Formats: sequence, C-alpha cells, structure tokens
Amino acid sequence: MKNKCNLDKAISAIGGKWKLAIIWSIYKSEIIRYNELKRQVEGITNMMLSKSLKELEEDKIIIRKQYEEIPPRVEYSLTENGKNLLPILKSLESWGSKQ
Amino acid sequence: MKNKCNLDKAISAIGGKWKLAIIWSIYKSEIIRYNELKRQVEGITNMMLSKSLKELEEDKIIIRKQYEEIPPRVEYSLTENGKNLLPILKSLESWGSKQ
Repeated sequence: MKNKCNLDKAISAIGGKWKLAIIWSIYKSEIIRYNELKRQVEGITNMMLSKSLKELEEDKIIIRKQYEEIPPRVEYSLTENGKNLLPILKSLESWGSKQ
Repeated sequence: MKNKCNLDKAISAIGGKWKLAIIWSIYKSEIIRYNELKRQVEGITNMMLSKSLKELEEDKIIIRKQYEEIPPRVEYSLTENGKNLLPILKSLESWGSKQ
C-alpha cells in the first residue's frame, strides 16, 4: 500500500449507502434496466439511484447504454474494472462475516 | 457474497474520511501512542481521532491499552481481525491505482 490516495479513491468509489447494493444487483443480472434496478435496490429513491449511477459511470465501474427506442431503453452493466472489484468485495464480505 | 449486510458492515467499519489512515498508521508502527498517531494522521482533530478510535475499538479492529502511569500512557495496536484487513486493503489499493 504505497499510495493511500488510491485506497481512499477506491473507498470513495464504492462507499456510501447504496453503491454496493447497486454494483451487486448489476453483477447478478449482468445487464439490467433502470426500473428493474430500482425494484431490486429496495428503498432507494430515483434521485439517489440516478446520482449513484452517474458517479459509478464516472468512476468507470459501470457502463450506461441508451437505446434510441420509443420509449428510450437504458441498460447498465459492469465494466471490466467493475468486475475486477468482485473478488475484493467477496473478501471484504467474508471479513465482515467474521466480525 | 451471500450476505450483503456483512459487506455493508465491513464498509461502514473502514469507510469514512479518517479510518483507513488511522489503520494504516497503526499497522506501520505496530504499537503507537495517541500523540504520535495524531501527528501521523495529518489534519485530524482530537474529536475526530477519539471518535474514530472508539469506533475502531468497538468494531474489534484495534486494541486500546492504557498504562496506569503518571501521566497515563495509552497505546493502540491492531487486533488479529484488524490485521486480516490488510491484504484486502492492499487489493483495494491496487484496484484504485488502476482506476
């Protein structure tokens, strides 16, 4: 751990109340539409879901793909970078279970 | 990752602005006194340091040992549980560096 900033960056990218639940739901579905994601992440508001998705997209953890249909369809999936997080999240989950 | 709650618990135990810096400083020194910790975690206030140390102790990540001297001496070190976090933090750091 030479550079604590990278760790802070990682924690800030996945920390917060909703991001892990969102990453986890997208991972399970591989590709997921906005409304289905909203159903799966129980209790999240549209404002928080949109904000979290935007930040996850900026942090290159998820990909947002919009299809020009009527009505427009928007789908989310994990980037390679996002998929690389999963073994780490599993280690962290296993550490949490021993707490 | 069967239980997202364990992951939330882990993130909440190590998330926030100061905890990683504190865990990292204690790890480097093995055993560290309060004032030295305050010097190493640049910019932290006494209030935030005390609060973070208390929470890390409650989450069984660090051990607080008080010696009945005059003036009293207080030392902090990582628990086994806290040491188990380090490889995970290193993976997360390495993920962050590729962001």
